[in-house]
Amino acid sequence: MRPAFYISDGTAITSEVFGHALLSLFPTEFEHHTISFVETIEKALEAKDKINAACKRTGQPALVFHTFVNHEIREIIDSCDGVIYNFLEHFVSPIEKEIGIAAKPKAHRTHSIHENSYDYRIDAVNYALANDDGSNISNYEDADIILVGVSRSGKTPSSLYLALQYGVKAANYPFTEEDLEDLRLPEFLKAHKKKIFGLTIDADRLMEIRDNRMANSRYSSARQCRMELREVEKLYKKEKIPFVNTTKFSVEEITAKILAETGLQRYKY
Amino acid sequence: MRPAFYISDGTAITSEVFGHALLSLFPTEFEHHTISFVETIEKALEAKDKINAACKRTGQPALVFHTFVNHEIREIIDSCDGVIYNFLEHFVSPIEKEIGIAAKPKAHRTHSIHENSYDYRIDAVNYALANDDGSNISNYEDADIILVGVSRSGKTPSSLYLALQYGVKAANYPFTEEDLEDLRLPEFLKAHKKKIFGLTIDADRLMEIRDNRMANSRYSSARQCRMELREVEKLYKKEKIPFVNTTKFSVEEITAKILAETGLQRYKY
Repeated sequence: MRPAFYISDGTAITSEVFGHALLSLFPTEFEHHTISFVETIEKALEAKDKINAACKRTGQPALVFHTFVNHEIREIIDSCDGVIYNFLEHFVSPIEKEIGIAAKPKAHRTHSIHENSYDYRIDAVNYALANDDGSNISNYEDADIILVGVSRSGKTPSSLYLALQYGVKAANYPFTEEDLEDLRLPEFLKAHKKKIFGLTIDADRLMEIRDNRMANSRYSSARQCRMELREVEKLYKKEKIPFVNTTKFSVEEITAKILAETGLQRYKY
Repeated sequence: MRPAFYISDGTAITSEVFGHALLSLFPTEFEHHTISFVETIEKALEAKDKINAACKRTGQPALVFHTFVNHEIREIIDSCDGVIYNFLEHFVSPIEKEIGIAAKPKAHRTHSIHENSYDYRIDAVNYALANDDGSNISNYEDADIILVGVSRSGKTPSSLYLALQYGVKAANYPFTEEDLEDLRLPEFLKAHKKKIFGLTIDADRLMEIRDNRMANSRYSSARQCRMELREVEKLYKKEKIPFVNTTKFSVEEITAKILAETGLQRYKY
């Protein structure tokens, strides 16, 4: 298998995203290696040794994705036996020309703390945890969004991802059987109707998830899952609540859809 | 302010990471716009209108970062009044030549569900929640890692990020005053010593965070914060527990350091 390396003097998240976006276009498998925090000559030499060892072991040049701006470290990595793909160098100078401002290469800190985004996000995580699973229905004033749905339709991971990735405060509320029987929103939700966003899921997938949690229960039965989903979708339509079916989507896709549909302000780019 | 657009037929996370890594090199501010899920001709035309409106409003060509592989949609976006930066086109053909395999452009789904990574991550989120803040000390067998530290040193956001981003099961345990007084690990942690990773933080920052939570309390006092941190760092050194100071780091950096230092297996690339 061809080895691929993602290297940077920071988290290497940018190199990973860059390399993975490219490699995912190819119908083959790669061996993935991340080397983060390569901030010194010593670490650069170690990284080079690792790349060269992988080239030797597999008999193929490794694909090396990096984003170095420091010349000394960059030269060491560039001198390895792998093939180098450095996307910064292709684009920096065209952008400089376009905007008429010179780039100021600094140690690469795309994923570091800046513009107070860290505080927003930690606040949002604390909010999501304190308002998870209907645990604090008196606190919806402070929510940016309130995710609703039946138990195990994806509310908690989505709330946490909105918090960690975007600094968005998401509460979530699981509809109870009583809510669904009456086919109406509880009063404490009605007051914040504009913030409500619904999740739904296919019955087969819901049964599978619930069965993992509570095998052979009424909770995970086909009858119960189908009934809850039928009622919740009726409620969304009746109350004109926007909603998304999470079955085939990753948490990145669910939250990107929520941001796109609601136009919610996010605190981090 | 120069407008920047991040556009894709999926989440647009790749375009955002790509554009943001570049723009963060320039000592100026940009106006950020994300347009995700541009999957149809109609949506492409709408996106083009939005870009053109921003160019007109600011009197400057927008910088447009995209990753389209569909030719029809791509041509529409490429015909806007902005300047296009498409990093896929620069790198696909060199990689094709290097690995001898033709790319199979498909609708761009880098951040979608594949290889069961979704299930790993949701399991890991559930694990992190059930084992947050020392709430379930009997369950450390299943942990990939156990984060320890004093209250508010960054354990919970780090555990959740490890789960959501990497599918790693992280428990976390806040040392009690008794643990620190005795300067020894509780028995239930000793049994899993190889999985333990410590967090620490500067006293001033800890006081600030705790004061936001419980103003003017013993908990947030300088004396208490300094004492706890002094003891916890002594304990790390005595027990040879690897640790990181989270004060100046984002949650991405903290977790990347944890992965780099522990060599933990991750479930998602």
